[in-house]
Amino acid sequence: MTTQPFSQRLAANVDERQSQVVLGLDPDPARVDGGATGARDFCLRVIEQAAPHCVAAKPQLACFERFGAEGWQAFEDVAQAASDAGLLVIADAKRGDVDATARHYAAAFLRPPVDALTVNPMLGTDAVQPFLDAAEATGTGLFVLVRTSNPGAAELEDLPLADGRLWHQAVAERVSGWGAHIPPRDGGLSSIGAVVGATVPEHLTRLRQLMPDQPFLLPGVGAQGGDPASLGPAFGGHMAGALVSASRSVIYADDPAAAARGLRDVVWAAWESVARG
Amino acid sequence: MTTQPFSQRLAANVDERQSQVVLGLDPDPARVDGGATGARDFCLRVIEQAAPHCVAAKPQLACFERFGAEGWQAFEDVAQAASDAGLLVIADAKRGDVDATARHYAAAFLRPPVDALTVNPMLGTDAVQPFLDAAEATGTGLFVLVRTSNPGAAELEDLPLADGRLWHQAVAERVSGWGAHIPPRDGGLSSIGAVVGATVPEHLTRLRQLMPDQPFLLPGVGAQGGDPASLGPAFGGHMAGALVSASRSVIYADDPAAAARGLRDVVWAAWESVARG
Repeated sequence: MTTQPFSQRLAANVDERQSQVVLGLDPDPARVDGGATGARDFCLRVIEQAAPHCVAAKPQLACFERFGAEGWQAFEDVAQAASDAGLLVIADAKRGDVDATARHYAAAFLRPPVDALTVNPMLGTDAVQPFLDAAEATGTGLFVLVRTSNPGAAELEDLPLADGRLWHQAVAERVSGWGAHIPPRDGGLSSIGAVVGATVPEHLTRLRQLMPDQPFLLPGVGAQGGDPASLGPAFGGHMAGALVSASRSVIYADDPAAAARGLRDVVWAAWESVARG
Repeated sequence: MTTQPFSQRLAANVDERQSQVVLGLDPDPARVDGGATGARDFCLRVIEQAAPHCVAAKPQLACFERFGAEGWQAFEDVAQAASDAGLLVIADAKRGDVDATARHYAAAFLRPPVDALTVNPMLGTDAVQPFLDAAEATGTGLFVLVRTSNPGAAELEDLPLADGRLWHQAVAERVSGWGAHIPPRDGGLSSIGAVVGATVPEHLTRLRQLMPDQPFLLPGVGAQGGDPASLGPAFGGHMAGALVSASRSVIYADDPAAAARGLRDVVWAAWESVARG
């Protein structure tokens, strides 16, 4: 049973490992042979190579589910290996459903070796509540989708509301409120974070204002085109406030260790620049 | 390999079985003992009892995922049993992610014995496109979340937009467009449907206008309080236009067959009332 809150474990791990890089584990069968076993072995190898430069691993459930029961076992093996390597484990499953169902998803994911889960907020507070309750009870965390990194994210997430906000800003305000109920925090960080695409730097400052205490999980760096050097506003003054997730640009690199280290250096420099003011 | 489009198989199955009832398979470990095996056996028993009165089964992935790899195998066994019993199989997984990931989810679910998948639209067209492409290629279907059945759904889904629509109505217009690209149809029905809570009859007429060709999957009858007799406007003139999903009120009934038959009779009467004009 994990008892230290996720926010504290996250802050401690960033400080100790001097990295905000999240290793996205999305093994694509078009590039990785051998089915579930091949995907597992590929991820174990990448973890061994890149882990020293990362703070967390983020296995993508879709890449494992496509292999059925065997894939699910591979996911569990990969999550355990990442945890054994000292990484926090963020299960990237983007679950979201009515409360009775959300309770089952929370039971499926919010337990060791998983430290945090990505969650879809569309259904609203009562549907997210079981995840919040489970996170508080087990010392795990959530990263709630607020503004995603895909090219067409604006279509529905950026629709302007009658009150002048964009739709995703209303989501952000909810996430801030949801996170306020998960004490204790470390240095102001909540255990309830937000997924914010690194591809939309123009939104980062506003989203940081709306969610002052949320750790941001920032996908979209690398293959999706986001620039890690522009992430300064995302930190919000917290060393662990901006976690940069990269998958394809690291795991398929000729040298995953070098790719992870290079990204770590750029993001760390962005943080140091913020910390110096 | 399935070649007949989902919309045609759905229309034929409703006509042949004279039922619009979808059997929701959400085995809750608080009520069903025995872990993954217990959940599987429970579902197989309920299918045997209730299938004659239903047109489709809707296994809830969360209830299986909580048992890990064993649970995933149980899901596959349950899906196969439902298919063998003549039911269409709707995998209730509510998946949604960026396009590279959505392709993996589509590969995981849109294949026999699964006939259709529930999908979350928040990320927009480019994220849904891989599901649309896979549905068209494999003759499977989708049910996209438009307005969910949970008590707090209004919080984010009903936010009023600057142009006067509600946010979920903008989603509905997209779903209608997405469905238009999945020919051929049967009697005007698309293979791309919508999830619309039966708990919000006041929205049904408007949503049917916005999505004239979508089969509606209507959860929330029974345990969640929706009244099946008020569903007339949901049909849109299609016998297979309104599919009523019930889980707890059927699977935990003393006599699941009687509960399914009773619901089938009420919904069928609602359809006959519409058909008579």
